[in-house]
Amino acid sequence: SRRYNIALLPGDGIGPEVIAVAKDVLNLAASFEGIGIDYKEMPVGGAALDLTGVPLPDETLLAAKQSDAVLFGAIGGYKWDDYPKHLKPETGLLQLRKGLEVFANLRPATVFPQLVDASTLKREVAEGVDLMVVRELTGGIYFGQPRGFKTSENGEEIGFNTEVYSAQEIDRVAHVAFKNARKRQGRVCSVDKANVLEASILWRKRVTAIAEEYPDVELSHMYIDNAAMQLIREPKQFDTILTNNIFGDILSDAASMVTGSIGMLPSASLRESGPGLFEPIHGSAPDIAGQDKANPLATVLSAAMLLKYGLGEENAAKRIEAAVLDTLDRGFRTGDIYSAGCKRVGCKEMGEELLKSI
Amino acid sequence: SRRYNIALLPGDGIGPEVIAVAKDVLNLAASFEGIGIDYKEMPVGGAALDLTGVPLPDETLLAAKQSDAVLFGAIGGYKWDDYPKHLKPETGLLQLRKGLEVFANLRPATVFPQLVDASTLKREVAEGVDLMVVRELTGGIYFGQPRGFKTSENGEEIGFNTEVYSAQEIDRVAHVAFKNARKRQGRVCSVDKANVLEASILWRKRVTAIAEEYPDVELSHMYIDNAAMQLIREPKQFDTILTNNIFGDILSDAASMVTGSIGMLPSASLRESGPGLFEPIHGSAPDIAGQDKANPLATVLSAAMLLKYGLGEENAAKRIEAAVLDTLDRGFRTGDIYSAGCKRVGCKEMGEELLKSI
Ligand SMILES: CC(C)[C@H](C(=O)O)[C@@H](O)C(=O)O
Ligand SMILES: CC(C)[C@H](C(=O)O)[C@@H](O)C(=O)O
Repeated sequence: SRRYNIALLPGDGIGPEVIAVAKDVLNLAASFEGIGIDYKEMPVGGAALDLTGVPLPDETLLAAKQSDAVLFGAIGGYKWDDYPKHLKPETGLLQLRKGLEVFANLRPATVFPQLVDASTLKREVAEGVDLMVVRELTGGIYFGQPRGFKTSENGEEIGFNTEVYSAQEIDRVAHVAFKNARKRQGRVCSVDKANVLEASILWRKRVTAIAEEYPDVELSHMYIDNAAMQLIREPKQFDTILTNNIFGDILSDAASMVTGSIGMLPSASLRESGPGLFEPIHGSAPDIAGQDKANPLATVLSAAMLLKYGLGEENAAKRIEAAVLDTLDRGFRTGDIYSAGCKRVGCKEMGEELLKSI
Repeated sequence: SRRYNIALLPGDGIGPEVIAVAKDVLNLAASFEGIGIDYKEMPVGGAALDLTGVPLPDETLLAAKQSDAVLFGAIGGYKWDDYPKHLKPETGLLQLRKGLEVFANLRPATVFPQLVDASTLKREVAEGVDLMVVRELTGGIYFGQPRGFKTSENGEEIGFNTEVYSAQEIDRVAHVAFKNARKRQGRVCSVDKANVLEASILWRKRVTAIAEEYPDVELSHMYIDNAAMQLIREPKQFDTILTNNIFGDILSDAASMVTGSIGMLPSASLRESGPGLFEPIHGSAPDIAGQDKANPLATVLSAAMLLKYGLGEENAAKRIEAAVLDTLDRGFRTGDIYSAGCKRVGCKEMGEELLKSI
């Protein structure tokens, strides 16, 4: 029988609650497929700061690197808001992404039919939205050098960052997007600001070149400002959106809000080989932490992505996805997705219902 | 009687059609207030490229600098799409903004009650949206040095840009936002990515410092990814949004789409003193150029902003704003905002109806 090592990084806020549910669900789905899982739970973010003084301890990164896949909760909280930049919980997450070199961030934005009315968009606009943002995750302005502060000749303070991409960084994430599109509707829309930025001109040139290796996939280009509009105007026009780190940060959040299913959306961060990082796209929600109110479904679906993309265990992944739909069909809702006539449950009870569905 | 010099820069595509209407409307509104206007019409964008080989001829910039205000149409078209970056129509617009040093770009996003159903957002979400994006326009990654292409040690192509802000650049646009908020609901939301970017950390620090001079204005901060979501989730929460050049480009387009009134929205680009630049936020729409189909209202409302912010002629501005509302009330619509039961008109006829309303 197959055995895997999973690094479990619950983090802060609602992280531990949703990870606990996801772990139970993962275990049950895996056992039905004859899969065994060993967990190594490690601190990250604010939890790690309190314990060790840094947001990503060496031991945590090492455990992540030595695992088959990493399941991540959420990080951050008011307590650490005023920490200097290198000691912010967020910095731990960025270091983890960079340390694992997971350059391709897959963020599906799917409207769950049961939740379509939760979108602020009109039903006919939101219904059927099913897109995937492929965001470059270890380059661009997030990591570009030089960066920092300096004083100008006339004594003025200056803050600066570098948006930078090499051909190889663009090529490898473009391949991920094209391969992904093949398994979807076969369309990639590459988003950039090539009418203003040199980094985007190179982006567009390389994506266009890589596209030649995928003649069966349709490529289009769009400027970021237009893409932000089109996501609101007609989100169904998109299949796979390929974009850089900062534009992907913005567009994937906008796309998730379009679906109205923001508490439901998972993500996968991958490289060619080596462990992937799987996390819900929502944050640590410190205001409801520890109150058993969190929606565990985004993390549960991240566990499904872990099985599918991280371990190649498609069948176990499908069991989880089916269980989520079944639990929604049976009317169970956490507060964030509650609507009249449904059964309101907490995080734990949602977990129990998921186990029944599997 | 008061006389002003206006530089008229029609540009490309539908630019000349909408500028022609706006000029007539401006003239009539001004004459009712005893204002005389002299125009100097100059080429910009693709039109200038064809005539002179550059997208912003020196004569055009000089005429703009010597004017009391600049009314701008739109630029760009398929014909010039493959021109190198320094010869793109867009580059002409960027050079004009920089040449005039109009560092504060005001972009109102207002839902016209008559057009609320044109929004893809649910009526109750879109209704009553009335926000103003104050976008820094002459700094940041649009103009930051160094920028360009280079080859890495291992022979790889690299494209790079610099996001950079000085304290003074932030301070001056922050003042514009706070002053503006005072005339509105008194709330500024400053949008940045201070959890990742040093340029944003300085942005947040300076905006916080400037806010002390405006104790009557409420300041909040939001990350750009969250702001893109919140614009979709609950756009009414915003009054004045203050942000940098690239984030403002994205957010103002998203905000305009939220209103559903994208063909209706004007903009003003200002500095402390010296001529301002007034332009519709829509583009040159080459596919409908010359067909008398364009909606001139965004440019007409830009002329109203020109009167109000550029010349201090509030009364004449109000005449134009009232005429736009009256013409909509009388049921006239261009194709882009047409709905059943209204009277469909072309660009010219819309202009004639506006003149009747004034
Ligand atoms: C927490 C923050 C650093 C992070 C990012 O900007 O990448 C988050 O917004 C995300 O999208 O995962
Ligand atoms: C045409 C382009 C250079 C411009 C910009 O990015 O500023 C446009 O999108 C705008 O917002 O006015």
